[in-house]
This record gives sequence, C-alpha cells and structure tokens, in this order.
Amino acid sequence: MNPVISLTTDFGHKGPFVALMKAAMLSRCPNASVIDYTHEIPVHWPPEAGFWLSRGFQTFPAGTVHVAVVDPGVGTERDIILLTHKGHWFLAPDNGLLGEILEFAKPQSVCRLDLERCLRRLQLPEPSNTFHGRDIFAPIAAELAAGRVTAAELGETVSDWVPSQIDSALKSSNRVHGTVITIDNFGNLISNIAAQDVPTGTIKVSLGGHEFPLRQTYGQVSPGDYLALINSLGVIEVAKSEGNASAGLGVERGAPVIVTGQT
Amino acid sequence: MNPVISLTTDFGHKGPFVALMKAAMLSRCPNASVIDYTHEIPVHWPPEAGFWLSRGFQTFPAGTVHVAVVDPGVGTERDIILLTHKGHWFLAPDNGLLGEILEFAKPQSVCRLDLERCLRRLQLPEPSNTFHGRDIFAPIAAELAAGRVTAAELGETVSDWVPSQIDSALKSSNRVHGTVITIDNFGNLISNIAAQDVPTGTIKVSLGGHEFPLRQTYGQVSPGDYLALINSLGVIEVAKSEGNASAGLGVERGAPVIVTGQT
Amino acid sequence: MNPVISLTTDFGHKGPFVALMKAAMLSRCPNASVIDYTHEIPVHWPPEAGFWLSRGFQTFPAGTVHVAVVDPGVGTERDIILLTHKGHWFLAPDNGLLGEILEFAKPQSVCRLDLERCLRRLQLPEPSNTFHGRDIFAPIAAELAAGRVTAAELGETVSDWVPSQIDSALKSSNRVHGTVITIDNFGNLISNIAAQDVPTGTIKVSLGGHEFPLRQTYGQVSPGDYLALINSLGVIEVAKSEGNASAGLGVERGAPVIVTGQT
Repeated sequence: MNPVISLTTDFGHKGPFVALMKAAMLSRCPNASVIDYTHEIPVHWPPEAGFWLSRGFQTFPAGTVHVAVVDPGVGTERDIILLTHKGHWFLAPDNGLLGEILEFAKPQSVCRLDLERCLRRLQLPEPSNTFHGRDIFAPIAAELAAGRVTAAELGETVSDWVPSQIDSALKSSNRVHGTVITIDNFGNLISNIAAQDVPTGTIKVSLGGHEFPLRQTYGQVSPGDYLALINSLGVIEVAKSEGNASAGLGVERGAPVIVTGQT
Repeated sequence: MNPVISLTTDFGHKGPFVALMKAAMLSRCPNASVIDYTHEIPVHWPPEAGFWLSRGFQTFPAGTVHVAVVDPGVGTERDIILLTHKGHWFLAPDNGLLGEILEFAKPQSVCRLDLERCLRRLQLPEPSNTFHGRDIFAPIAAELAAGRVTAAELGETVSDWVPSQIDSALKSSNRVHGTVITIDNFGNLISNIAAQDVPTGTIKVSLGGHEFPLRQTYGQVSPGDYLALINSLGVIEVAKSEGNASAGLGVERGAPVIVTGQT
Repeated sequence: MNPVISLTTDFGHKGPFVALMKAAMLSRCPNASVIDYTHEIPVHWPPEAGFWLSRGFQTFPAGTVHVAVVDPGVGTERDIILLTHKGHWFLAPDNGLLGEILEFAKPQSVCRLDLERCLRRLQLPEPSNTFHGRDIFAPIAAELAAGRVTAAELGETVSDWVPSQIDSALKSSNRVHGTVITIDNFGNLISNIAAQDVPTGTIKVSLGGHEFPLRQTYGQVSPGDYLALINSLGVIEVAKSEGNASAGLGVERGAPVIVTGQT
C-alpha cells in the first residue's frame, strides 16, 4: 500500500504554495498519495485546522501522516510538534493547532522537533524564514511516510505544549456551552460540542438568540426550516433544510452555542 | 493500469468533506487515481453535475467510476442509482442528476441500490444521516473501481428513475430552444443545445435580448465583441472575446437560449 | 519513479476543465503524478503563470513536465513553445508566458511545435478550437512524461519567441525598479525583484507611497506593522505581520516597487 499524507493549510488556492509542498514530498517519497485535506482554513486560525483533523483523521488508513501548516509564527522561535495517535502521525506548529488531539495523547507519544537535528538527519539546506511548509514540514512528512525516520531521530519527547486558542465545550449539569467553530459550504453552523457530551433527552439547542429542535437529519423538517442535529463528524450542527443557516441567521464563526437537556 | 475514479460534488473546498471521501476510497482501493471533476457545482443543483458529466466522461479511460454527490435529499428515502454506459460507471443519487446520461442508457444497465444489501456486502457500519458521500458512495465506488463487486450484488435492475430537473433542449422546425446551464470561469455562457441539434445554415443565436453570430472560435471577432460558437464540449456557448460575457450581458444561469436557422 | 506533471491554468475550479486535461493525460500516461500548480492565475494574464513557474520549478524532481495553459489566443494562429531547462520540460502557448525562463534558456533548447506533425505523431484527432489544453497540451505532456516522444519529433528549434508582457525588474546604480506581480492568500505583495538584484546595504523598499524596512521575517516586526523581506521564492515582498498588506495599503497587482540601496 502506498504511503498516505494529508495536507491542511491556510494557503488557499492562489499561487503554487501547496504544490511546492507536494513537490518537496514527491522528491523524497515518490509513491506517496498526498490528499488535500483542506487549504481554506481561515488565515492564521489554527483551531479550525485542529478541529477538522481531530474529527476526520480516522477515516484515513492507519499510518497516514497528517501535516497541518497554519503557522502565523513561521520564522520565529515557535516549535514544531510531532505526535503519534491511534496509529496516525500528526505534524504541526506548536501553536495550539493540535490541541484537541493532544488532549487524548498518550505519554511518550508527543515529540518536540530539534530543528538542527532534523536538518542534519535529512540533509536539508538552511530553511527559508517564511515557508517552513516547503522547507521543513514537507520533507519530514515524506520521510515519515516512507518509513525512513523515527520520531526519536528528530526530537525529544515532551509533556507540555501550547494549548488550543479556543476553549473546549464546557459541560455543567444539564447544559453544554460550546462555540461555532466553522461553517461549511452549505452554510451549516458546526460547533465543537461532541455527541457524547449532549445531555440525554435533549430538547433544545440555542444559537444567535434562537432555539432549535434536535433532529436526526435535514429531511425531518420542511425545506426552509431550521434544525439542530448531530452531524457526520459527531458534533452539534445548526442547519437550514435546503438552505443556508449562516446567511439566514446572520451567525458567524465564534458564536456561542448552548445545548440544554430536559429539566 | 490503476483504476480511475472521478468525483463531482457541491462541497466546495472549505472543510475536509472531499478529502474524507478520498480517504474512504483509498482505504479500500489504495491504487485508485481519484480525479476531482469539480466540487463547485452550485449547492443543491444536480443538473449542472449531470451536464458536465455527460459532456466530459468520454475523455476518461474506459472503466472509470464517476461518482457525483449533489444530494439535497441525503438522509431521506431517496434512492441511489448505479449505471453502466459506454464502458463507464456512474454512481449518483436518484434525483435527476444522471438524467442526460440515463436518456441514452441501455435496458438492463441501470441499477437501484438496495442499501441493506450494500452495507452487508461491503461490511459497512450503519451510515450517518448526513454524509452518504463518505459512508456509502465512496466505499461502493472504491469496490467497483477495484473490480471486487458487481452491480447485481448491490441492487436491482430498474427502468424508472427521477427525471432531470431541467428540460432538454427542444427542437422545432428551424429553431432550438435551450437554457444557459452553467457559466465557466471566463464568464462564457454555456447552453444545453448540442451541436447535432443546431439547424444547418444557422444564422443567429438569441440570448438575453441580443442576437449573436455563430462563429468557430473566439479569435474570429475583435476583442470585446460577442459571439456564439459550438464549444469544446459540443454545445452552443455565448462568449465575449477576451472578456466576460456573463458580466457584460448581465445574463445568469437559467436564461433561455434560442438558435434560429436560415429561413 | 513515476513521471511528474505540473499543471498551471487560469481555469479556476468551476467546471471540469482541469479534470479533462488530467483525464487526457492519464489515458496516455496512467502512472503520472499530476500536481495542480495553481489554477487561479488571473484570467488571460500569462505573466503571473510564468513568474510562479520560474520561481518554483526547481522544487520538483528533474524530469518534471510543467504545462501552463493561460491562453487568450486559443484557436488563433498563436504557436506553442516546448522548452527544456535545467532538466525540466516546459510547455506553454507562445504568448510571453515562459518569458522569464526563456531569458536563461540555452540555444537549441527551445522548440516551436509543428501542430500537424504533433497530431500525426500522437495520432490525435483534429483539435477543438477552444480547448487546446485537453486536445493538444495534455496529450503532448503525457507522452513527454512517459518518455515516448522527443522535442525533435514535435517541432523545430527556434531562437525567437513572443516576449513577456511585463518588463523585468530594472537595475540602475543603487536602485531597482520592479512591479507587484502577484498577491498571495495572505495579502503579501510579491514583486519581480530578485534577491541577487537587491543592492547591498539596502535601507528601504518603496511601494504605494510608503517606505518599508527590509527585514528577514514577519516576526521581526510587531503584529500589524509592515515590512519588506526577501521571501521564500527569492524575491522582494511587502507584508504586514499577522495582517493583510494588500488590503491595508490598498495596493494591487501591477503597482511599482522601488528598492533603494544605502547612499
């Protein structure tokens, strides 16, 4: 089976920046399947990248190397984290991006890269100050995917890291407080409230001054009506059947979401 | 030769939804070449997906599996259609998306999936209510591409299906009435009027209250001038040489197009 | 190692035009890795495609075939250029797109395609008037990538071609005059002034009526402050730390940039 690499950035599709990372990967691991996870993370907003990764990585085959470059601190002293979790690799700046996954990381599974050691081990030239995606992340991901390097050769095990920039959903008696963490192409408002935190017998989801019933799927309400549901990523989402909930409600990323159970 | 899968959706490029379908495919058919056909179908508008597919599939190698997920009815009782046509596979919701291709389908070539049978045959877990792309379409496409499953194992041959949401072009004596079915990145207005339906000795194409001469290529009129032509997909298109016809004419998707032959 | 093809267009992501080029490539070279370089070149603006290519091609493995289709003259008498340079192939319309790379091309390395000869040699059907990307560029790129055809079989060596539509940066005593050639997803203003042309002891970069200090990386100024730097592509860039320089300064593509050395 060919090695698989997933690639998450805030580079968008203008310019060749994603392509240059892939070129650097293919030069070292020509048979890798590189999958664009998404390149439309809001610029300089690591938490959305971490959210998507934590919610989707298990659909990839075990052994996949997930690289995420949302990196406002490139060229500063910020570190790079390499993590193994449930048989997958994760490589990202130490800026909170991997926060949700690191919460569940096993001791000894998190490594802080020693840049000098990486450059030597991979025989890399001095990296640019502004594009570590091409110069550091891509070659390391390729070598990991090819199985030619181990975490121990690249850095030191650590037990501290930069926490996520956003709070996890907060559970209290029959309520959970969370946040709209992203909005998809359909205008669905996707929160960070996980299914397992939703109280039993839930009766309402509040968002933007409105309350929504919890249903199973879009088709259970009439076209144009709003609903809340547990979506395919296992989190609470507010949607408008055959419509755009974000536009309809005027609600944006960052809005608070409250799930209230039966009293 | 590696199996080829083409992928058409209205998911856009925000979020990992396309990537999750590819991950599910690669898990079952690691050597598949998955080609993004387009992910910018207007949200919940199956006819454009079917138009592009019917006009482009033959550029792919025979044996390609074309998967199209524009699926406003996901989670309801809508069916899924699997079709073989000219040596290609087509897999899409039964919502009219495949209308143009089904028009030419041979008897016995169209299959309605039996979901329970599919889940058993592929040993799939219970699908989510909102993302059949990842949970049903992707694994079935991968197994078809790998040649490990047949249509007969997945459903029953049928001879009825949901028709396309838009009318085919209508021919009458020396006229053809059609529709602007899509607009490309250049602003070219692309209709559903096929070359073979254009009357001989055609003298004009009418659209948005204007008439345009039928030419062979953009360079046959001066930059800034409008023209009609039979484009590379074999249909009537109205264009502005080195310009944007949609912006220039204020014409949108859905506008009527009339081709009139010499009287 | 699988053959690699990079693909640059102004097609955007609406419609299947990029996919149809890939399908045509895969039909002839099934094991090619086709990398999307970028498809968001401004419509009908070849210089940006040539700039990105000249600044990034060396990150790809030697032997890569770089295809660029930004082709307002499609269907007219414009020629097609095939170039070998530093072990890479470049295939593009003869409209100035390859100007920056051709400046450094060796004699005998540039070929003008003879279309009739190409069609015969590759047994291609008569091409459409409007989509040479699918009908000519893609099959030729695939055959080159597969190593089944040589430049001499496709055309004649030439020493003249259409020059770039934009002037190269101009050096004069302690000044260099250049142009903002593109703006990336972060709003960074990227010029065509190369590092090796920047005077030593440089003290300022002028753009849009402002002057900026030359720094090494974004983190050397406070968030919200502007700076100039030599970016990861080896050219002068004006950026706003953790912000969007283009939006902040109201500066667009085409704006003049002046680098002034110490007097």
